[in-house]
Amino acid sequence: MKFNIEAPKEDIKALLVKKIDNLNKPKGSLGRLEELALQIGLIQQTLSPTLSHPCHLLFGGDHGIEREGVSASPRDVTWQQMINFTKGGGGVNMLCRQHGFKLHIIDMGIDHELTAYPTIIDRKIAYGTKNFLHGPAMTEEEFDRAISTGKEMADRCFEEGCTVICMGEMGIANTCPSSIWMSLFGNIPLSECIGAGSGLDNEGIRHKENVLKNALIRFNARSCQTIDAIRYFGGFEMVGAIGAMLRAAEHHMIIMVDGFIMTACMLAASRLYPNILHYAVFGHCSGESGHRRMLDCMNAKPLLSLGMRLGEGTGALCAYPIIESSVRMMNEMNNFDNAHITKYF
Amino acid sequence: MKFNIEAPKEDIKALLVKKIDNLNKPKGSLGRLEELALQIGLIQQTLSPTLSHPCHLLFGGDHGIEREGVSASPRDVTWQQMINFTKGGGGVNMLCRQHGFKLHIIDMGIDHELTAYPTIIDRKIAYGTKNFLHGPAMTEEEFDRAISTGKEMADRCFEEGCTVICMGEMGIANTCPSSIWMSLFGNIPLSECIGAGSGLDNEGIRHKENVLKNALIRFNARSCQTIDAIRYFGGFEMVGAIGAMLRAAEHHMIIMVDGFIMTACMLAASRLYPNILHYAVFGHCSGESGHRRMLDCMNAKPLLSLGMRLGEGTGALCAYPIIESSVRMMNEMNNFDNAHITKYF
Repeated sequence: MKFNIEAPKEDIKALLVKKIDNLNKPKGSLGRLEELALQIGLIQQTLSPTLSHPCHLLFGGDHGIEREGVSASPRDVTWQQMINFTKGGGGVNMLCRQHGFKLHIIDMGIDHELTAYPTIIDRKIAYGTKNFLHGPAMTEEEFDRAISTGKEMADRCFEEGCTVICMGEMGIANTCPSSIWMSLFGNIPLSECIGAGSGLDNEGIRHKENVLKNALIRFNARSCQTIDAIRYFGGFEMVGAIGAMLRAAEHHMIIMVDGFIMTACMLAASRLYPNILHYAVFGHCSGESGHRRMLDCMNAKPLLSLGMRLGEGTGALCAYPIIESSVRMMNEMNNFDNAHITKYF
Repeated sequence: MKFNIEAPKEDIKALLVKKIDNLNKPKGSLGRLEELALQIGLIQQTLSPTLSHPCHLLFGGDHGIEREGVSASPRDVTWQQMINFTKGGGGVNMLCRQHGFKLHIIDMGIDHELTAYPTIIDRKIAYGTKNFLHGPAMTEEEFDRAISTGKEMADRCFEEGCTVICMGEMGIANTCPSSIWMSLFGNIPLSECIGAGSGLDNEGIRHKENVLKNALIRFNARSCQTIDAIRYFGGFEMVGAIGAMLRAAEHHMIIMVDGFIMTACMLAASRLYPNILHYAVFGHCSGESGHRRMLDCMNAKPLLSLGMRLGEGTGALCAYPIIESSVRMMNEMNNFDNAHITKYF
């Protein structure tokens, strides 16, 4: 696994700042829109950025750790929801329709036969990962396949003309690997990384914490590198997302980051390739406990905070219009000169 | 001035909650979208709400108090920006285009001849309000005309089929009456109600505070009613917005509330007719100091917090897609039964 992710060149920065400051508004008065416009201008190396062919990659996968009773939802919900997505009835579908995203649904490793559904891209690596309480969730070969598939999907979007890409996931129990990655890569005590997921009660959360604590003891983090921890705990859908994120950054695409699980993937990716963060736009702070703190590990400032915790990429998708507004600002607002307005200050 | 604003009937509430809870997602996992769906369902008294013909009313007016040097921007910016809006080059224009809002631009009392611009609706009451440092900003007759004009505009939108309406303003120095209303209607010390507006420095803010303090002393709030304070300090554009808000609530429209100035108008309106708050959706918390606290006076939870402080209605408009998502959720998401998904819990 080798990616070449460069930080955007800074030569154009002064010109971008000048353009933004001279739009007909008090300096700074469009707040985060102005910050986004600067970031996107740098990514695209232009004073007139564009958003074209937005794509959403929805990766699905099941988790061996689910067998330990760590989720409020049964494993079957993963495949049931995948089929629901093919029919357009999920949260992710309505938001893709609303914001004009092309939705790619990918079976990375779901514990159910889904080949009868042609709109699900079949890249099944296995019928779920192995249970990381007893050993690594996937083999090295499986890991490489998951990364490659993510890369392939980002390439496909890129070739279609996509400049802004979003990732989401469906995978019952995938807050578990996310919490462990948060703890390991963010250097945060495990107990502060664990939340209710799809709806655990307090007892359920305590049980989940015990299971994950035991898994971490067996793993012995000290001797391992980032990539080992990604492979040991990761879900196929999560490693797929990491591959897609890394490839999207290579392509200088804007990468929209969703909630707890996708943020954990971006955190993992950024520990491998720190420059990826130049391309990341964090869509929202979710209702899952610990998300804010994980965002802080990357100095990430999420655009929204609406108490959402559905996953699928829904939180990030809700933030897309704000990205669009920032781009419109650069292309459609007059400046003080051509609007014939007395410069405010 | 008499309005008849009823609270939405609650009979349908249990059915709304049941529908929202049975959509195929963990209960509550769409956060604020679910709360909005409930509010809108109550406003429209339906399980399948719709947003039709969204309209934005942009009220413009000048302020006598501007003569005291209380704004970083010169008075001419009001009319210059109004003309800019007719050309489509303002912040409000790009957001109306992005979100499909019909924009109505209304001259409520700008200190400039604008009749040469047919897309500006001419309802000029005077060439700016009088300076409230020395007496009331407007006469009773002027006040009535401003309320009536707002009402007329809301009626126009309603007759076109509008179910969701937004208000914005252009009026140099209009943070001044807003701060005073916040202090009077929120019972908050004046000094905590004053911010930088379009860009005052610390010295400028101190001067503004002195001016407003003196104006309040002369006004003698104790002997006066809400409506007197609205008339004494208000701008024509602000009283117009209040009229439009009250009428929109009579029509059971969703009212989108923008930043510091429009929130002050909603606060004033709600002191006259508390039921109006059932119809209000607060778009954002602005970067203007004090806005958060003013929102708290109404237990208002703004959807966005992006550090915006441009006015014109731009912050509220940015929040519109979230309202749209909540309505889509009600109409487009499957529930557990028709999606054939095991109910999570």
